[in-house]
Order: sequence, then structure tokens, then C-alpha cells
Amino acid sequence: MAAYDFERLIVDIPDYPEPGVVFKDITPLFADPEGFDAVVESIAARFADAGVTKVIGAEARGFMVGAPVAHRLGAGFVPARKPGKLPRETASESYALEYGTDSLEIHLDAISSDDVVLIVDDLVATGGTAVAQARLVERFGARLAGMGFLMELAFLDPRKAIAEATDAEVFSLVKVG
Amino acid sequence: MAAYDFERLIVDIPDYPEPGVVFKDITPLFADPEGFDAVVESIAARFADAGVTKVIGAEARGFMVGAPVAHRLGAGFVPARKPGKLPRETASESYALEYGTDSLEIHLDAISSDDVVLIVDDLVATGGTAVAQARLVERFGARLAGMGFLMELAFLDPRKAIAEATDAEVFSLVKVG
Repeated sequence: MAAYDFERLIVDIPDYPEPGVVFKDITPLFADPEGFDAVVESIAARFADAGVTKVIGAEARGFMVGAPVAHRLGAGFVPARKPGKLPRETASESYALEYGTDSLEIHLDAISSDDVVLIVDDLVATGGTAVAQARLVERFGARLAGMGFLMELAFLDPRKAIAEATDAEVFSLVKVG
Repeated sequence: MAAYDFERLIVDIPDYPEPGVVFKDITPLFADPEGFDAVVESIAARFADAGVTKVIGAEARGFMVGAPVAHRLGAGFVPARKPGKLPRETASESYALEYGTDSLEIHLDAISSDDVVLIVDDLVATGGTAVAQARLVERFGARLAGMGFLMELAFLDPRKAIAEATDAEVFSLVKVG
């Protein structure tokens, strides 16, 4: 497959959600049938031979890319949700925000030690949520096949933080900075 | 395709999120590769000949089922988000809750009058969010191909509320009550 020009359909929003931050709006890319297909197929193709049985996507934009990649790979989809959103017993991992912490939760029966897990998200920035999800996979005793992202904010060096937690492959379609 | 036993993998949570309500937890169905595939393929198959160009899914569980159905149909995916989550100019429609109202927003450039739109969600209960999304589709001047749901709480009679807003087809995989 020829390289797709993903950035053509990603809109920069200066000073959003706060001054000095450039928000990358991926909704035009997802609304475009060809662009959306290229996102899903490109991430799925990279991990097609990894034997993935479960894909984790983090609330909420991670659902939009993780669920179709899971379906394309013939895997199950596991949402990593914000605290209090899942109705049964969960495993939880916290991660640092600019000010304070937040956490992600996965149902205890969502992943087993036999699973081969792919973490998929629209964006990796500092790597905090990716590392929290990698720790969850480890706690379930499952194997982490890798991480696939639409966008990587390379200037925040997420690969350094991720490499301290796992040696799983990190793949991104668009690198920023 | 033989009828799939979706209910086997949907877990009833009594008195959640409040006393007297039985919450239907779909996460075990989505975590199961075969079950997740059956959900996506069954909804997509029903609308395969409808010429769908855009699928709308409502935050957040609607993303999990709407995005893979969109990909399967070769359509774009458009998130209907809660207020303040989308960074650019939106169209908004409100709907009634048990106490008060909430609303859903779609980016103004997400749908055009040429689009054929499918609304997909995990659950239709009173039909409030489905009707709000149908009104949004109408405001964009697009054609509504139908609505596809994993679960329909038939005892709340959502089809009556939906029929007052649109004559588009309503399809659900599991009817409760």
C-alpha cells in the first residue's frame, strides 16, 4: 500500500484546549471513508502476523480507532475506561497528568494470561496512558504484542517513557515534531 | 449467517447505576473475538445495500460499535460527542434525560447533503439520543439510511419516539422486555 497522506485530513487548532497548545483534530480524517480505511488498514497490517487476540483502546477517541482495528484483526475489543464507568470489578492503573493524576480501568475478566494484546490509540503524547495500559496487560499475565497509534507527538519523546515499561513494538502513522 | 446468541455474552448488573435498574454490560461480548465480529457483521450486513457514506456513533460506547461498522461498510465515521468535546464549530441537538436534558454535537463539516447516514449505537432505550442524531442528520440535509443497535429496550418503546421523528428503518440485534 502506498503511503497515505494522513496529515492532509488532520486539522491544527491553535491554542486549544489552552494557550500554547496546538490540538490535532482527527475527526475530518475519520469522516473521510478513504482516510478512515487507511488508518485502520495501516495499523492492522503492521500487526497482522502478531497473533493478536485482544485490542485495548482508551476512552474515548481510542475506541474509534481501536475497535475497527480489533475487528479487522479478528480480535476482541477491550475498552480501558475512566474511573467509575465499568460496572464490574476492575484492574486500575494511574498515570500522571500535567497537574495531578488520572487512571484507566479494565474489567478483571476482559483479558486472560493466554491473550496477545495490542494497545491502539489515536494519539501518543507523553506516553502516560500507553504505559498505564502496558502495566495492566502485564498484571493480567498476557503478552503485549505492541502499540499502534495514529499520531505520535515525537517532541514529547513518548518512546523513552514506553521503553522503560516494555520492549514491545511502538508503531505510529504520523510523527509530529 | 446463523443467528448468533448475543445474550450469552451480555451480563446483567442488577441495581446499577441505581436501584431498580438492570444494567446490560456488553463488554464481555465485545471482548470475545467471535461475538464482536458477529455484532459488527450483523449490523453491517443489514445496511450493506443502503449506500451508506457516513456512520454516526454517540459518545462513548457508540464509538465501539459505530466505528467498526463504518469501516466494514467502507463509510466514514462521525462521532456525536458530549458538549465541549469537539474543537471546532458544531451543530447541537438536545434530548431529555430522566431529570433535565443533555445534548450531542457534530462538527459542521462532518456531514454534507450528499451523505447517506447510518446511526449506530450499542443501546436504544427511550430513543432520545437516536432522535437527536436523526434531527442532526436532517439539519445537514443528508439522507438517513437507518439506525442499527446492538440492544433495544423494547419495554421503553423507543420505536414510537423514533417513528415520530423519522421513517428510517430501525434494526436491533437483541430485544429486551
